[in-house]
Amino acid sequence: MDTSLLPVGHADIDAAARAIAPFAVRTPLLSPPVLSERLGAKVFVKPEVLQRTGSFKFRGAFNKLSSIPPDARGGGVVAFSSGNHAQGVAAAAQILNMRATIVMPADAPLAKRERTKAFGAEVVLYDRDREDREAIARDIAGQRGATLVPPYDDPMVIAGQGTVGREIAEDLAVLGVEPDIVVVPVSGGGLVAGVATAIKARFPRAMVMSAEPEGFDDHARSLRAGKREAHEARGRTICDALMALTPGEITFAINSRLLATGVTASDAQVAAAVAFAFRELKLVVEPGGAVGLAALLAGHVEARGKNVVIVLSGGNVDADLYARLIA
Amino acid sequence: MDTSLLPVGHADIDAAARAIAPFAVRTPLLSPPVLSERLGAKVFVKPEVLQRTGSFKFRGAFNKLSSIPPDARGGGVVAFSSGNHAQGVAAAAQILNMRATIVMPADAPLAKRERTKAFGAEVVLYDRDREDREAIARDIAGQRGATLVPPYDDPMVIAGQGTVGREIAEDLAVLGVEPDIVVVPVSGGGLVAGVATAIKARFPRAMVMSAEPEGFDDHARSLRAGKREAHEARGRTICDALMALTPGEITFAINSRLLATGVTASDAQVAAAVAFAFRELKLVVEPGGAVGLAALLAGHVEARGKNVVIVLSGGNVDADLYARLIA
Repeated sequence: MDTSLLPVGHADIDAAARAIAPFAVRTPLLSPPVLSERLGAKVFVKPEVLQRTGSFKFRGAFNKLSSIPPDARGGGVVAFSSGNHAQGVAAAAQILNMRATIVMPADAPLAKRERTKAFGAEVVLYDRDREDREAIARDIAGQRGATLVPPYDDPMVIAGQGTVGREIAEDLAVLGVEPDIVVVPVSGGGLVAGVATAIKARFPRAMVMSAEPEGFDDHARSLRAGKREAHEARGRTICDALMALTPGEITFAINSRLLATGVTASDAQVAAAVAFAFRELKLVVEPGGAVGLAALLAGHVEARGKNVVIVLSGGNVDADLYARLIA
Repeated sequence: MDTSLLPVGHADIDAAARAIAPFAVRTPLLSPPVLSERLGAKVFVKPEVLQRTGSFKFRGAFNKLSSIPPDARGGGVVAFSSGNHAQGVAAAAQILNMRATIVMPADAPLAKRERTKAFGAEVVLYDRDREDREAIARDIAGQRGATLVPPYDDPMVIAGQGTVGREIAEDLAVLGVEPDIVVVPVSGGGLVAGVATAIKARFPRAMVMSAEPEGFDDHARSLRAGKREAHEARGRTICDALMALTPGEITFAINSRLLATGVTASDAQVAAAVAFAFRELKLVVEPGGAVGLAALLAGHVEARGKNVVIVLSGGNVDADLYARLIA
């Protein structure tokens, strides 16, 4: 397929890989026997829980911040985030000696709030149900001359997240393995857009799938409809990181072209996947980071006999919630 | 130093690496920025929690079992173990289609008992304070014609565990890094003996250190004394995997020549290390597997400015204990 007109190309991801290399963790590609044996497939796991800040978000944030011209860095950066993007931006700003302000929902996990502050960022809380985080962030950006760092709908952010897919493709190529299926947790779609761009550049036949919490399935719906649709969930999911209402504009321009389909998992299936990762994989995965694994373990992905890659996108979970999930 | 007269040589470890390669996980060598930045050192982590069965023990068990001649395999194998060796032997026996009987203390963590049975082994429980596990295992071996698989005091077992050190040395050599210090959790001394043999073969100046729970410091004492001494602890430690009374004969013949010193950590320091690994490394580590990390974080290893490797030797911990440790 012709991907030359898409907003992010694999050359952008190559450039991002060079930009983040001195500071990002090149996470390994694991292949836990227990997972392959259980599913009758060859399963690979990309543990972005091992990334700096505990999620993939550092990649996109650092790539974006390092692209800000020196004369614009004095105003600092501002971002809105339920948590992992916040930590990614805060850590990137700290490394680059920039001021960071993070607009975060008041009900974000305590661990994510505290860790964001620990990276030296100022945290401004808002009410998820009554206030508009984007408007608050834009106000701060206007007052301070700060650069807004979008969580997903930005080519530099997408290219940074794409380094996850680039590393997967590199490691599979060394092993001589062609992936049949790649499953990626999705909220606004930045990670999966970058991963799909990198994977499809090397393995055009691979099927890349978005994974979302049941009900919060705006990508699955939008991919079926061929246009951006909102999900209909009104409540909460334990996947606090995956509550975007609709796919991003830029991300969906990519994902509508490159993704095969979207899968989902219920909160109970996600909880079981978090416990499985504790018991069998020895990896700490937050609910949102485990939704792809959950879909796989629940049988929502036709894995048998296939080469399957799942991304575990983050591991920032409060200890008390984690204790309940693994009990 | 002349190591040619030691019971295990690096050629034995090379052979073990070939034997286990089809089934063991080649675990990655991680370098979490958070650990290096906190300690002012370059810290590498060998996460044997990612090994098949959740600990390094599979390596030695599989190497030993695969060395049993075909005509002696019919009698199966028997082992005594507080847990991780049990799983290693059970999993290796399952792969090799051999019968396994495991003699296990009645107070071993439930997770370890259940997982051992899940690998198809028969579990025989004994009273840790009143019965002699070695005698029970020898009785079973005599009755059934089974081969006894010692947990550590056996050259094939030591050579298998040595593949941990071989992989560390290989990966460091690729990075062009010479290790100054390698810290390894120790009970009977099999893992550290194998690791030291492999590390010193490639990096003769590296200091390899045993790490033990405070009080259960028979290696630290024995290394100081130059002969095998028992520890004086009477109670329990949360490091259920590390309660051997004295170093092994064969392991100490190696360790007394190759180890620099022994360090310790208190149960509170071990608990803090388990919580640190949860929060910052996103790795599930059992208390015994975290004792080296604990000694490092507690400042018991002079790490500043050095290249330091720590082995996280296992991750099989009951969910309820884990929940208390990370709270």
